[in-house]
Order: sequence, then C-alpha cells, then structure tokens
Amino acid sequence: MDNKLMLMIPGPTPVPEQVLLAMAKHPIGHRSGEFSKIMAEVTENLKWLHQTQNDVLMLTVSGTGAMEAGIINFLSPGDRVLVGSNGKFGERWVEVCEAYSLNVDPVTAEWGKPLDPEQFREKLEADTEKQIKAVIITHSETSTGVINDLETINRHVKAHGEALIIVDAVTSLGAANVPIDDWGLDVVGSGSQKGYMIPPGLGFVAVSPKAWEAYEKAKLPKYYLDLKPYRKNAAKNTTPFTPPVNLIIGLQAALQMMKAEGLESIFARHLRQMNATREAMKALGLPLFAPDGAGSPAITAVAPTTVDAEQVRSVMKKRFDIVLAGGQDHLKGKIFRIGHLGFVSDRDILTAVGSLEATLIELGHQGFTSGAGVAAAAKVIAKS
Amino acid sequence: MDNKLMLMIPGPTPVPEQVLLAMAKHPIGHRSGEFSKIMAEVTENLKWLHQTQNDVLMLTVSGTGAMEAGIINFLSPGDRVLVGSNGKFGERWVEVCEAYSLNVDPVTAEWGKPLDPEQFREKLEADTEKQIKAVIITHSETSTGVINDLETINRHVKAHGEALIIVDAVTSLGAANVPIDDWGLDVVGSGSQKGYMIPPGLGFVAVSPKAWEAYEKAKLPKYYLDLKPYRKNAAKNTTPFTPPVNLIIGLQAALQMMKAEGLESIFARHLRQMNATREAMKALGLPLFAPDGAGSPAITAVAPTTVDAEQVRSVMKKRFDIVLAGGQDHLKGKIFRIGHLGFVSDRDILTAVGSLEATLIELGHQGFTSGAGVAAAAKVIAKS
Repeated sequence: MDNKLMLMIPGPTPVPEQVLLAMAKHPIGHRSGEFSKIMAEVTENLKWLHQTQNDVLMLTVSGTGAMEAGIINFLSPGDRVLVGSNGKFGERWVEVCEAYSLNVDPVTAEWGKPLDPEQFREKLEADTEKQIKAVIITHSETSTGVINDLETINRHVKAHGEALIIVDAVTSLGAANVPIDDWGLDVVGSGSQKGYMIPPGLGFVAVSPKAWEAYEKAKLPKYYLDLKPYRKNAAKNTTPFTPPVNLIIGLQAALQMMKAEGLESIFARHLRQMNATREAMKALGLPLFAPDGAGSPAITAVAPTTVDAEQVRSVMKKRFDIVLAGGQDHLKGKIFRIGHLGFVSDRDILTAVGSLEATLIELGHQGFTSGAGVAAAAKVIAKS
Repeated sequence: MDNKLMLMIPGPTPVPEQVLLAMAKHPIGHRSGEFSKIMAEVTENLKWLHQTQNDVLMLTVSGTGAMEAGIINFLSPGDRVLVGSNGKFGERWVEVCEAYSLNVDPVTAEWGKPLDPEQFREKLEADTEKQIKAVIITHSETSTGVINDLETINRHVKAHGEALIIVDAVTSLGAANVPIDDWGLDVVGSGSQKGYMIPPGLGFVAVSPKAWEAYEKAKLPKYYLDLKPYRKNAAKNTTPFTPPVNLIIGLQAALQMMKAEGLESIFARHLRQMNATREAMKALGLPLFAPDGAGSPAITAVAPTTVDAEQVRSVMKKRFDIVLAGGQDHLKGKIFRIGHLGFVSDRDILTAVGSLEATLIELGHQGFTSGAGVAAAAKVIAKS
C-alpha cells in the first residue's frame, strides 16, 4: 500500500492539513496591504513563540543559512569565538566560523554526549581581557539526539559580560523551552521544517539589542544575509527581498494552531513523547545513544547492537511506510533516529513503537517481550 | 467581490492549479530515494530550460541570494568588475560587489534606457592587462521593463577573453531566449517566482566550466552560498542543506508543463504579450517607459502623464482585483508596471487592457477611443 507515508525524521516534519491547504492558495503580491497584515500577525506570533520582545526576522534560507546570518552579522575577522561541538551541527558552526576567518576555539564532547558547561566556565573566566566575542551553542544536536545544557552555559556567558550567546535552536525552538528574554539569549536561529510544522524554506533569527550593538561594529561582508535590512523592513511589515509568500501563509496557520495549543502544552507534549520513546527503547533492549538527562525532546537516537540500524530503517519504510532518519557521517549505519518534533501526536509514538516491534521480530532481534515497547510508551503517555 | 485576485506583477506570478496542488502534498524526506528521483528529473529539465549542459544549482534563496552566490563564488577582494546599472537591480549588484570589497566600475544608463554595449566594448578593449575579472549584467531590468542587449555585450566580453559574464536573468529566464551554451554565458542567476510559474522561495544559478575554474582561485568568504557543496550534492541528486521539498515538487510539475509547451512557444508567447501590451498602451495614449526595441518580454512599464500612476493601480485593484506593480525608488508614483511573465495567457492581456480602459474612463483620462486598447492588443494577438 502506497501513499500513506509517515515522517518520523527531524525535518521535514509532518505538516497539518490546514497548513498545506493554506499554502495551496494562489500567491498574493508581497508588497500588498493584505500581505503586510499577514506579516504583522506572523511577526507578533513569532515573538510569542520565541518568548521575546526582540526582533524575530524571517529569511528565505534553510536552518544553516539562518545560523550563518546569526554568526556573521555580529563578528569581525579574527574575533575569538567559543563553539560547542558535539555533533554534526556543532561541527558545521565551526566550519562557518572558519570560512569567515574567525578565531575559533572549539569546545568539544564526544558525539552522543552533552557539552560540559564547566569547560565553558573555565575558558570564559580565564578570559579577563574579554577577547571572546561570542559563544555559539547547538541547543538540540539533531545528529545525536542530545540536548546541551544551554541554561547553565548561558549563565557562564552572562558572567563573562562581553560575549554574545548565539544559539542554534533549529530543533529545539517550538519543542523545548527557549525563553529568550528570561535567559537573555542574544541570537537564536531556527528553521521552518522543524517545530514550526511547516515545510522547509524559511529560516528565523531572533536578535537582542546587545547583538544589534555588536552589529554596528561587525565587519564581515554580507548582503543577502545582512540582517539590518530585514529589521528595517520588518518594522514596516515587509521584507527586503521577495519572501516565500505561500510558506508564510502556511506559517500563519501553523502559528495559530500553536497558540491554540499553548507553549506549556507544546513543550510538555514533546517531553512526554521523548520519555515514551526512550522508555520503549529500553523495554525493547535497544541502547539509547544519548544518556538519560541529555535526551532531546525533538529526536531520539538509538544505537542497536543486535540488529543493523539501516535494516531497521529499511523494514520500517517498506513494511510500514514510516521514515526514520539514519546516522550522519561516522554514525552512518550505527544509529537510527526517531523524530518526535512538531506535528506529532501521542498516537504517532505508539504507532512507531508498535511498528518497530514488528520490525524487530522480522529482523530476528532477541531479548524483548513482544508488546513491551508499546506498554512502556503507553505507561508514560497515560500517566503524563 | 473578493477572492478573484489576478496578479499582473513581475513576481510572484500566477501559479497553475496543478502546481499548487502538487505543493499541497505532505512533504517527503529529502534524503529519500523518492526525492532523489524528483531531483534528477528537475535537474535535467532545468538544464533543458537553461539550454545548457552546465550545472544548474538550486538554492533556498530569493533571486538576490542567487545573484549574490553567482558573484561571490568566483571573485576575490579587489577584483575589478564591470557592472551594468540602469535600474534598481543593476544598482543592487553594484551594492553586492561593494559589500564584498570588489573594485566596481559601474556602466550606467538612465533608468528606462538600455545599457550601451559600446561602453562595455571600450572598457574591455582598453583592459589589455586583463584586470577585469567579471562583467555583471541585468538582462531584463524588472524595475523599468527594459531589456539589455546581453548578446552584444557578451560578444565584447568574449573578445576580452578573461572576464566572466555573470547574468541576472531573474525576469528573463523562461521568458526570453537565454541560450547559455550557444552564447557561452558563465553564470546565470534566476528565481522561482518569475518565469518558472511557482511561488517564491527557490533561486537558481547556472555555472560554466570556466566559472568553476575561477571558483578555485576565488577568495571571498562564503558558506551557505558556497556553490561547490551544491554541485557535489547535485551530482548525487541531493542537496547540502534541507531543500524546500514542497516547492521543488511544485517545480517538477511546472517544468513538465513548460516542456509540453516548448521553449520556442514560451518565448513567442512572452514576446507576443509584450507587443500586445505595448501596442495597447500606445493606442490608449499612455507613454511607454522603455523605448521600442528595448522592451522586456516580462514586463511593460508605463509612465502616464494625464493620470496618476498610483491611482491607476488603486482603481485596477479595487474595481477589478488586478494587481499591477508600482515604480520603485525615485520612480514611485511615476510609473506603473504590467507583468506578463510566467503563467499568463493571451486572454489575461485582453482582460488587463480592458480593465485598464475602464479604469482610465473612471479617472477621466482623455485622448483615447474607448476600445482602442483592446483592439490594438487583439490585433497583435490575432496575427501572431
């Protein structure tokens, strides 16, 4: 049976029907009063979602483009930056910094382990001359399913006083609590195909007043990714370049749904689904890649030892039309990743775990009682 | 009566229903075999549309992002570049070059007039030391409705031998003949919401082998706009960053429609509609902003003297739900622009001209015989 695809990957994530239908309308002109009204509503709701009064700017880019904009707008060649790197995306921000001749000081942890906030504290405290201009952190590391302790690392950045905190919240925004104003996060980047419940094609960058001050002194070259024209135009409910009109109209519908659900419910749902997924994996004898306490509410990575990760993905796709993500780079073939991000219901978790059980039986995986995974997931879901 | 909007602007352009419905499907994973198949088909059809065997790369950007990528990938700080500037977009490429510390030599013409190829010839011939690394030309200047003589300018670039020709074909690709391989165009940038008949959100850059050679020596910093990873991934029918899956599935449908129509028919249709529109404006006593022989097949700019351009736009919108574009920058209020680009039929031209006649009567414009505009347009359309 075809055409009953179920995406359980960390993006693109499933898109609600009302968003798809909103996107299927004939485009309208982006310089019209009608579009400006939509921009005004979307911008206000983005601020709500970001828990901030800062600017939240929309760019036609992927999450990587949003993060690059979030880095290059506030720094100059040779600036020292601490970059957390414990997965593919942390490594990517190191590459971006190197491409722009920043003086990169990577703070690393093994893939699958969270960053150690103490290492940031030590480097920041030792920097009495305030050479460190920014600390760049991936909040939810999509490649490993690890969440880094942004709150603690940010506290050390605040004690430093000078450095900006620049956050990759691509798979945490709309899934985990990222209280920008409460924590004083300077730059937060994210992408549409994640917690936003819409297809890929839009990137978001939230910018604090302190970051705008740094912008004035920043000397890296930029044009399309220069955030100032986006800010100037956003103030007039418009954009410097032609925006992806249909996607923004889809976003309008998605944000209305998110507001109806409420931030606390959204975060609780993601946490509950992470817990249900993790408990199910334990019950099935499948080792979790991220340790307890460091699991991302967006995605759970599993490192099976008795079955082949790629075979699990293959059977899940062929037999049940469920798409799981594989491992990236050196983790290819070693892990599979279950996305529970965005428009995912508790029912979807039970569905995925049940299908995974059937897959394990097909692959001859031993050491679990049939039904144990669903039972473990159901227990978490029922009591939450 | 609401919800019967008709876009006659140079982007977003109207989108066929089958493209909208294709876009409204649930997204699929971008690392799937199914998506790779779509990428393979789309890439092949993009090469057909671009009349080239060169790479045609897709980026999640607006047309400006595509052009910036087309400039910064092939140049180094201090490189001398000739930039044609006779409208808002030519001026924008000057700004991009300046943002990246290139040594910009603008070749200007008044807004509304075409660039003079002789000025390029003189500068290129005088450059015996081959300091000029690139010539950047806007083919169809969207802000004024002028088409520049790319073929002749390119011939002078070829005689120079060293400089790359970098073309803004944002409103000419898919509307006018841009035979990349025949003419030897090195870099050609364009955007989805124009001749492609899909909504905004995708940019395209075609790159010649000569440009890839220049890439290897180019030193401007870049990451998201770095074209090499796009090329490397395109060879495997994938993308370096998450692509706008739904838009690409819409593009697949649009390119199938374009292939069914055929390149010659598409170009003839745009030319016919330009001629019909221009003849209608003459018959209505409305001065054309671009001189005969330099009109863009994508857009006709009109500079009325007896009625207010903004009032024309306002009545056309309020009474007939037809959106025309206004003037940009110093042309604001002085011109209106009729887009006839992409999914526009001959019927649409008659509709727009008929509605414009009624608008002129409402605004008290004198000096034309009612029906003369439609008659002039019909004459062109009937005999073509």
